[in-house]
Order: sequence, then C-alpha cells, then structure tokens
Amino acid sequence: MIIIMHPEATPYEIDNVVAGGEAKGWQTHRSRDSGQTIIGLQGKGQPIDPFHLGQMPGVEDTMAITQKFKLTSRAFRREDTTFTIGQVIIGSNRLAVIAGPCSVESRDQLMETAHAVKEAGATFLRGGAYKPRSSPYSFQGLGEQGLKLLAEAREATGLPVVTEVMSPTKVALVAVYADVLQIGARNMQNFDLLNAVGKAHKPVLLKRGMSATVEDMLMAAEYILAHGNNQVMLCERGIRTFDNKYTRNTFDVNAIPLLKELTHLPVIADPSHAIGVRRHVQAVTLAGVAAGADGLIIETHPNPDQAVSDGDQSLTLPQFSELMAQVRKMAKAVDKTVW
Amino acid sequence: MIIIMHPEATPYEIDNVVAGGEAKGWQTHRSRDSGQTIIGLQGKGQPIDPFHLGQMPGVEDTMAITQKFKLTSRAFRREDTTFTIGQVIIGSNRLAVIAGPCSVESRDQLMETAHAVKEAGATFLRGGAYKPRSSPYSFQGLGEQGLKLLAEAREATGLPVVTEVMSPTKVALVAVYADVLQIGARNMQNFDLLNAVGKAHKPVLLKRGMSATVEDMLMAAEYILAHGNNQVMLCERGIRTFDNKYTRNTFDVNAIPLLKELTHLPVIADPSHAIGVRRHVQAVTLAGVAAGADGLIIETHPNPDQAVSDGDQSLTLPQFSELMAQVRKMAKAVDKTVW
Amino acid sequence: MIIIMHPEATPYEIDNVVAGGEAKGWQTHRSRDSGQTIIGLQGKGQPIDPFHLGQMPGVEDTMAITQKFKLTSRAFRREDTTFTIGQVIIGSNRLAVIAGPCSVESRDQLMETAHAVKEAGATFLRGGAYKPRSSPYSFQGLGEQGLKLLAEAREATGLPVVTEVMSPTKVALVAVYADVLQIGARNMQNFDLLNAVGKAHKPVLLKRGMSATVEDMLMAAEYILAHGNNQVMLCERGIRTFDNKYTRNTFDVNAIPLLKELTHLPVIADPSHAIGVRRHVQAVTLAGVAAGADGLIIETHPNPDQAVSDGDQSLTLPQFSELMAQVRKMAKAVDKTVW
Amino acid sequence: MIIIMHPEATPYEIDNVVAGGEAKGWQTHRSRDSGQTIIGLQGKGQPIDPFHLGQMPGVEDTMAITQKFKLTSRAFRREDTTFTIGQVIIGSNRLAVIAGPCSVESRDQLMETAHAVKEAGATFLRGGAYKPRSSPYSFQGLGEQGLKLLAEAREATGLPVVTEVMSPTKVALVAVYADVLQIGARNMQNFDLLNAVGKAHKPVLLKRGMSATVEDMLMAAEYILAHGNNQVMLCERGIRTFDNKYTRNTFDVNAIPLLKELTHLPVIADPSHAIGVRRHVQAVTLAGVAAGADGLIIETHPNPDQAVSDGDQSLTLPQFSELMAQVRKMAKAVDKTVW
Repeated sequence: MIIIMHPEATPYEIDNVVAGGEAKGWQTHRSRDSGQTIIGLQGKGQPIDPFHLGQMPGVEDTMAITQKFKLTSRAFRREDTTFTIGQVIIGSNRLAVIAGPCSVESRDQLMETAHAVKEAGATFLRGGAYKPRSSPYSFQGLGEQGLKLLAEAREATGLPVVTEVMSPTKVALVAVYADVLQIGARNMQNFDLLNAVGKAHKPVLLKRGMSATVEDMLMAAEYILAHGNNQVMLCERGIRTFDNKYTRNTFDVNAIPLLKELTHLPVIADPSHAIGVRRHVQAVTLAGVAAGADGLIIETHPNPDQAVSDGDQSLTLPQFSELMAQVRKMAKAVDKTVW
Repeated sequence: MIIIMHPEATPYEIDNVVAGGEAKGWQTHRSRDSGQTIIGLQGKGQPIDPFHLGQMPGVEDTMAITQKFKLTSRAFRREDTTFTIGQVIIGSNRLAVIAGPCSVESRDQLMETAHAVKEAGATFLRGGAYKPRSSPYSFQGLGEQGLKLLAEAREATGLPVVTEVMSPTKVALVAVYADVLQIGARNMQNFDLLNAVGKAHKPVLLKRGMSATVEDMLMAAEYILAHGNNQVMLCERGIRTFDNKYTRNTFDVNAIPLLKELTHLPVIADPSHAIGVRRHVQAVTLAGVAAGADGLIIETHPNPDQAVSDGDQSLTLPQFSELMAQVRKMAKAVDKTVW
Repeated sequence: MIIIMHPEATPYEIDNVVAGGEAKGWQTHRSRDSGQTIIGLQGKGQPIDPFHLGQMPGVEDTMAITQKFKLTSRAFRREDTTFTIGQVIIGSNRLAVIAGPCSVESRDQLMETAHAVKEAGATFLRGGAYKPRSSPYSFQGLGEQGLKLLAEAREATGLPVVTEVMSPTKVALVAVYADVLQIGARNMQNFDLLNAVGKAHKPVLLKRGMSATVEDMLMAAEYILAHGNNQVMLCERGIRTFDNKYTRNTFDVNAIPLLKELTHLPVIADPSHAIGVRRHVQAVTLAGVAAGADGLIIETHPNPDQAVSDGDQSLTLPQFSELMAQVRKMAKAVDKTVW
Repeated sequence: MIIIMHPEATPYEIDNVVAGGEAKGWQTHRSRDSGQTIIGLQGKGQPIDPFHLGQMPGVEDTMAITQKFKLTSRAFRREDTTFTIGQVIIGSNRLAVIAGPCSVESRDQLMETAHAVKEAGATFLRGGAYKPRSSPYSFQGLGEQGLKLLAEAREATGLPVVTEVMSPTKVALVAVYADVLQIGARNMQNFDLLNAVGKAHKPVLLKRGMSATVEDMLMAAEYILAHGNNQVMLCERGIRTFDNKYTRNTFDVNAIPLLKELTHLPVIADPSHAIGVRRHVQAVTLAGVAAGADGLIIETHPNPDQAVSDGDQSLTLPQFSELMAQVRKMAKAVDKTVW
C-alpha cells in the first residue's frame, strides 16, 4: 500500500498516518516525490480499509501496488517522467544522445571528441574518470584529473557531462563536476552506492547489470527513488547469454518496450556495450530507436585503435557523425526528433 | 579448401580432382551451386598448392575458408543470395512479410486470415499443419487436412504458403502443398530432417534453435546447402536467457547485422516468438527492420484469445494492418520498401 | 484428470468412460501402463465429479494432477520405476554404468573398449553408429555397420548395448541391434522421434536438451510414456550457460535431486559431455553419484587423442578403471553399490 | 612478466628493477606476498630478456604468466594456499564448515544457532549484519548491533565469525568484529570494495557473481591479492541460467575442479544459495564435497519459516546436524575429514 500525502500535509498529519500503519503491524517507509510525502506500508500487517485511510487528515490518495517495485511503476505514475538537464528534456519525444570516449585519456583526446560530437548533434558528453576494470593491472582512470577535464570540456562546448561513480565515498566529489551520475553495470546492485546517489539530488544513469532481470533493474532504481530522487534514466546495455563468439553481449531490445510499459522512467540504449563491435553499432543503435528508446549512449574516440579501453566498440568521429544522420531518419520514422 | 569447378567441367575432370584430393589424404565432399560442382576438402590431408590445383582441367577457382561454415559464408559468396518465390524476390531491398496463424484450425479461420493479411500487404501466408507441442496432450495440428486448407488459401489469395515439416518422412508430402518448408527451432539440429529438406529443392525457412549460437545456425544451414539447395532463409526467433518473467524469449537483434556480415543468405525476423507478448510485437518488429532484416514472419489470428496455440503473441487482423503501416514507414527509413 | 481403468476393464467400459468425458467437452487421451489403460482428460470441459466417475464400471482410480507432466510425475506413481535390462535393474540402489566410445570406429577399437570396460565393472556398452554432428563434413558414423559391431561386442562381453537413433525411420532398424535406444540432446524435442521410440517397446535413454528446462525434459518423456513405454531413463548431460571458456557445458547437478523428487523415472548422469574435459570427468562423476544419480554414462576410448569425435572428454581405458574404483567408494558413502 | 624479489632485496634494488621495466615501456605493479615483493610488468613494452633480468641484484625469480590472472594462478604458486583462522586450517584435507543464519535477527536466534551448529561440528559461524536486499523496503540488517551479537556468539562458542561487508566505508568497522570478511555475489566486481578488503589484512570469503565467469572471479580475487592479502577463499554459490522454475540458481559444480586446477586458493561451496530449496540442500552439499570443495557454507535457522530472509533455503538445526553426519561419510569417501 502506497499513501500519497497532500503537498500541504503537516508533519503532524504525516506522523499520524505512519503511527496508524505501525499500530496495525506494518513496516513504514517515507519518501518524497515532487514535493509530496509518500508513505509505503510493507510487510504483513493487519488489513487496512483504503476508504477509511483516505479520510485521514492530510491524505491525498492511496494505491495498492502489487508489483515489488512501487515508485518506479506505471501504477504509481501513469505519465512519463521527464526532467531537464541543461537545455535537454529527458523523456520527451526528442532523443537525448550521449557521446564520448570510454575513458578520459587526455585533454586533447577529450576536447577533440567533445567538439566533434557536439558538432554532429550529441546532447551530452560522456567519459570515464573512474573506470571499473576487470583486471587490477589495467588503466583505472585519471580520477579527479579526469573530472576536471570533463568540466573543462563542458565549458568549451556547453554539453552536460555524464560520468561514472564507483563508490559511495566519491559521490560528493563526482557530483561537483558531473551533471549526470552514472552507475555502471557491475554496480547495479551496489546498494550503498544506490543509496548515496539517491541522496545526491543529481540525475542518475543506471546501467542494467549483465545478468539483471528487468525487475532487478527496476528494484535497483527503486532504491534511488526511495530517497526522493526520481531523475533516473534506465540504460539497457546488453546482457550475458550463451553466445559470445562474435559479439560482447546480447542487446535485449525486448527490454525497451517492456520497460516503457512497466515504468514511467526514461530508457536509454547503449549499443556500444550491447554488441561490442564497432561495425555493428549502427544497426543496434537504429534498432534501439525503433523499439522506443528515449535516448542513446555511444562510445566515440578520435582514434579507437589507440584507446586505452573499449576501442573495439568505439566509433571514429566521422562514423559518429554518419550515425547521427541515420538516427535522424530513424527518429522521424517513429515520430521523434533529435535535439 | 573449396574447389569450384567450371560450369562445363566434365564428370571425368571432376572425378580427377576428387581423386587427387583423396590421394593426398583429404576427405572430399561434392555439392552443386548454381549449376557448378563444388568440391570441399576436409580433414587433415597433406598440403595442397592452390596454384597447382587451379591449373587442373575443369577447375575455375579455389578458396581457403577458415570458418567451419563454408557454403553459407560470405567468403564463399560475396553477393547477397536472392531467390524468387511466386512474385517475391527474397533477399532484395523489398521486405518479405509472412503472416498467418500459428496453427491452421479451420477453413473459416484460415481464409479470413489469408484475405486480411493479403489486403494488409503480406506477401506469404503461414500456418502450421504439423505442430511441435511440448505436451503430447496439446493439439498436434490438422496434418494433411491442414496442408490442403493452406493450398486452398493460396488458390484464393495468390499468397505462397510457408508451413512446418517435422519429420524426414513427411518432407515429400509437405512439399506437394507448400512453397516454403519451415524447420522449427526445436528441429534446427535434427540433421536427418536437414538432409531431407536439402534434397527437396524447395525453399527453406530455418528457425534458430532456442539456444543455438549464430555459428550453430550457419552450420545447420550448411547441411541444406551441401545438398545443392541454397534457397535458405535464416530466421531469428528469440533465444533463451535468464529473464523470462515478462517475455517468452529474448530477441537477439545483434544476430541480424552479424548474420548479414557472416553469410550471404537472407535473414528473417520473427517478433511474435521473440517476445511472445502481443502488445510488444510492434516494437520488436520495427527493431528487426531497423537492424537490417530482409523479411518478417508474424503470427496473426482473427480471434487470438480463442487460438488453439500461441494466442498470447498473435496479432488481431486490425493490429496486423496497423503494424504494416508502421513497417512501411520503417522500411523507408532504411531505404527499403515492402512488396 | 487421469482415470486409471481396472486391469480387467472391458473395451466397452473404456469406451464408455471416454465417451462420457468427451460429452462433457474434454479432449481424451488413452495410454497403457503396466497392463492398465489410462485415460487422460485435457482441455477445458465442464467439471466432473471424481466420486461419480469412480463409480463407473471398470474405473479403478482417478487422480487430479496439476503439473503439465502427468504419467512421468511422482503424483501419478509414488514408487521409483525400475526395469531390468539384461542382468541389471535400472533404478535400484545399484548404480548402472554405461561406458564406451563416442563413435564406433572399428571392430578393434570397439572390442578393446568393450572388454576393458566390462573388466572395470561397466554394466552397459555405449557407442554411436549414427552421429549427430554440427558439421555436415564431419564423420557421420558407420551406420548399420556400426550397429552390427555393437551387437558383436555384446555377444563377446554380455554387455547390453546403448546407441543413439536420430530419425523415426531408423527406429525399427536400431531396435534390432540395440538394447537401449538413446535420444540425443539435439533431438530431445523431436516429437516424431519421441513418438516412434514410444511405440518401440524398448528402453530409452533420453538426454536433456542443452537449453531444456527440467520441465521440458519431463514433457519430452511424457511423449514416450503416453505410448505405454515407461522404460525411460532421464539423462542430465550439461546445459548451455554464459561460461564456456574452460568447459564444454555446465553440469546441472541441481537437476538430479529435483528430478528424483518430481518423477519416478531413473536418472543417469553424463559427466563426459557435462564438463567436456577429460581430467575433470572424475570430479563431476563423483558429484553426480553424491547427488543421487541412479547411473552413469561415460565416454572411454583406447586412444582418445585419435578419436574421430569427442576425444577431449573421453577417458583412457586405465583412467576408466581408476574411475570405477572411486565410484565404488562414493557409492558406498550414499548407501549404494555398483553392479 | 612477474618478477619475484629476494626477501632481503633492498628498496634500492626494487626501485631499480621497476625503473628498468618502465624504461622499456612497461607499466609496473608492486605487491607483497609472504614477505617478498612481487613486481608485475603489464602492457606493451619492449621485450625483456628473462636471463638478463634474473641477474639483476635482488631478483630471486621471474615468471611469464599468460593468463590474465597472475597472483591467483597455479602458474604463480603451485602448492595449495592454506591459512589458519582460529583453530582451523583452510585449504587442508579437513573440510571447513561455516554455518549460521542468513541475517542476524536477535540475540536469542543467533545464540541458539551458534551453539547448535558448534555442537553439530561447524567450524565457523556465519550471519549477516549488513544485508544486500533487492528491495529497499526489505529488512536491511541490524548493522553494528548485529556485529556485536556475532562477536558475543564467538565469545560463547569459540567459533570464528564470517560476515558480509557491503561498502568500503564499513570495512574497518566490520574488521573489528569479524574474523572473515565476506564479499557478496552482487559486489564481486565492486572494485573499490575489493581494494578496501585487500588492504585490510583479514581473510576474505569472495562469492562468485551470479553471472561471473570463473575467470571473472579469479580477476576479482586478483584485486585482493594485488594488495598483498592472499587469505582469500573463493565461493561457488550458483549461477543464473535459463531454468529457475523449481530452483533459485544453478550450482556450477564444474567450477570446483576447474578452480582447483587454475588457482591455489581454497574453494568453498554454498549449497544453500546454489539451489535455494531446503529439502535439496543435502544433495548439493554432498555433490560439492565429492567434487573437491575445501569447505562449505550452509544457512541454518532455529525456525526457517519465520526467518526474515532466505528462509526457504535455511536448514533447521536438526537438519543441519543430520547433514553433518552425511558430510562426514562423504568426506571419508574423498579421503578428507571434517574438523
């Protein structure tokens, strides 16, 4: 049971509803959404009459949500969630396009990429300063130095910055420089990190874990929303299956219409990781748009063969420009545009 | 090593090349392609000098193909394979659309569907007369009676017929009625059946097994091509993964650009089985076209909720008509048309 | 609903029950089990009063089975099914051990193996005469010649023979020579083949498909039992997962206790295919016995490195002998013995 | 290339070798193992002559390791790694048995369990104070209060304590109370956490991620060893596959012999999570021991049906006692004992 309090409900009224739920044996959970307090009742308490509850002072509405995910569900909010970052409205019928290198390697590499992707029509710059690498001996990112370069590139191009944060202890630092906090696939169920970005009041790009179900992803997002931060983009980036001879992952394109049905949150496709092979990124990108994605995140690099990470899947700058032309045609076919 | 003989090579010249290969310790394999004999050398024979081989009477060309699949590979044939069924050229830049019910249930059901899908723009009629069902107690199809109804529907609409054959003993019978022999996912590695359709000289629609790799599918097609039948369409119909709570399978959209690169054979997308949920079929269909599929196979039924099989994923006839309008827009975005 | 008729029920009484079910709108299905007719009611008929049904002439018992698999379920038969092949009782507390080469290659290879595995304590000889190979260019087996060699080896050693049949058209032929008909993993849902072995009244070894669920396997067995043949062994031989860098498949050891709970049929473990690496076969074998398998099937070869198929996973003859010593110790730990 | 320095190598000698590697274009990485400095050379430097390198002052040995994992590999250390916690030597031929509840719920629940598992022969107490839960609304653990109860239970029983740490910020706190730091499956690639426990100089139990390959797990362990902490136990706890109708995960028993070959680190089996069904835990436990595990971790609870988490897979205390009797028989069959 979800109880939505009036925007003007007093603390006393809120406490009163909470106390009433607990008296009936329920665990209670408070969160904030668009200036309203949301009270969740969980567990195995005694039955509560919704009609009676709806009469209590300060209560605006009550909802029974049978799915495990609550605040992320379409049952909780019927309309698409949209939010504005810089000039761009995420979740609208204009596709957001996030582009840039896997890792920030140097000022030159980043600036060249930032200007080129801006020119080609990207609306965000991505780049990793803290890199989750399967080997401890691989390049681990430039750290704060990388964050500063990203901020510098934003100054130069006007593109808001998306970058990954790997640890709760780094959320405050990364939030100083970044416009969007990215949670990587390997950290999708790092719950302390989810709690930390939930409290950060910054937009979040949440990548699907490589073997996370769609429901697992929605539950991970629920951790963030439960702290009152509903500026969350869900990112399909490919899953692990039995077939990896020619591709890195399997793009779960089914997840896109499914997520658009189950949740009000915007959905971003990541074709670069989803197939992992540069010459096939275009086909997967177009499939993602055709299936209904609200945006894209694409790895690009001035010289992919020299990239310190993920070079195999990074587009060259001219390839990215060509891709954007195709994306514009595709967007039109599904009655959308590109910013 | 693949040796392509001249179209006018004599039986003596062919035997001579075969004997030469065997004398060097190779296993040999003969097949026919477009009126030319192809000789494959397999196993662990002594090295053969390609230049010397190319000088032998009757030899047109030689090719070293390192992949396990040979005749199906792009290395063997660079151009897309196309073939004509009825009025339709498969593998061209006009999408083939196969539509109809999962099972042939009755004359009325089939005729109503056939006329409606024809009207909406489909180019083939599908319908199952022999049904592979996981339970022995489920409806197993109308058998030859179903084949006759399909032939009758072809008479009435002009649409060529695609239907499944489950057993080598039934290939001759099904070939009497059908224009395209379908091999179901569960039979993708039923090698006796592959051999039988290879010899049948009818076009084949080969569905990917639910846990078959792309390479496994190409090897299965190789069985058919090795009998000289290269009229094979490869069908991506969804794979089994860890996530099946809300969908039946996972549409492996990556497989489409990958197959278009690895093989010259046309690729068909089956969104109905790939997601298994009626209201999401459209998104997956559009993704398949965007990714480069040469055609589609879609389940449609006058009254899906009464269907004896696969009702959950079958479109109503108006939904199919609406889908075709979207497919036309999508085809245009990738510089194709619909027949 | 399952209706079990008295052993002495007359054809008239049986027809009468069937007619009664059909009059209520049910589909009916007849099979035989241990000399009794079983009538299944499927579909969506009107409710039937079990008490009233139990009063009809010739009816011995009625059962409501909610699982999709009926005759294979523990609900249908509580006691373990056992059956005798040669001297061996399958499904008892003495482990059956099936050993031999992947493919029958020559008389010498087979005879040497047969004598050695007999000596080491095996109770069945395995060997493939018809081989399902992923490539059409690989060795396809010796065919009937291989069957004759198997029969000859049985003469020489007294070991009953297990061999694969790939096609319904070959069931009669293989049944002439073999004691147990093996259905391979790739044919687990080749329903025409399942029907053919169901009618053959020979014991069957049914291998699990590489992406078949436990329920899929039980439904496949149901096809065989529905023809009155309940001499079916279920074989866990490894499934396809995301991890295949160092091993061929993933042995699903969970399936063993699960199958022993869900069905009364005996369960055989195939460690050779399940891991696919010779030096790890012993660990997987012991795990299978520890988990409760009723028997084992192990690939052995006089000279695995020269084997035409599956050499990497075949034990040498001395390794097999050493394995049997370990199996005996392990059997003892779970209160079993080896024949 | 791995360079092992003499135990008495001076800082100057070490710096000299590092500088030499860097001068040739290699990235260098230092770690400590058993009192010796290990220098790794990574990346794409110029070739180095191992003989010449071996002559440098302070160098004891050099090794070329082709696998991605280095310090965890058998190539680096041929003998099994063993280490002592309390009275127990991990990695010996005596099985370590870790038992206790999923979550610490109360003093009574924990004490009753601790005494009972000690009585039955367990050698460690497990219990979660910080719980990674898929829902933010589920019980998240008692936190430090839970840690204090665990320490109290250790006082009372003498059993060393294994408990999970979820965040780098909590490592120091958990290390005050725990004897073994557990990294959960969802955090297997939380690299900041791996670095933190690597520096903590406490034994670590590293659980395999639900879709981590065996190689991924070894690379995760490499993060810990690279900080000089080689007291790491690797825990197989079941993977995600396509079949989850009747079980929670698929126990990858293949991983046990494979890990014992690839690495010198001890391997622990977790049958509770691996199958997730109480009545099947015994079969999976015995399979794990039969396959060669060095230890077990088993969930037990005085009243599983009232457990706040994982009740379905927790054994009752009498069931655990009965399990231990079976484990003792099984250990004997593989020439091991239980502490």
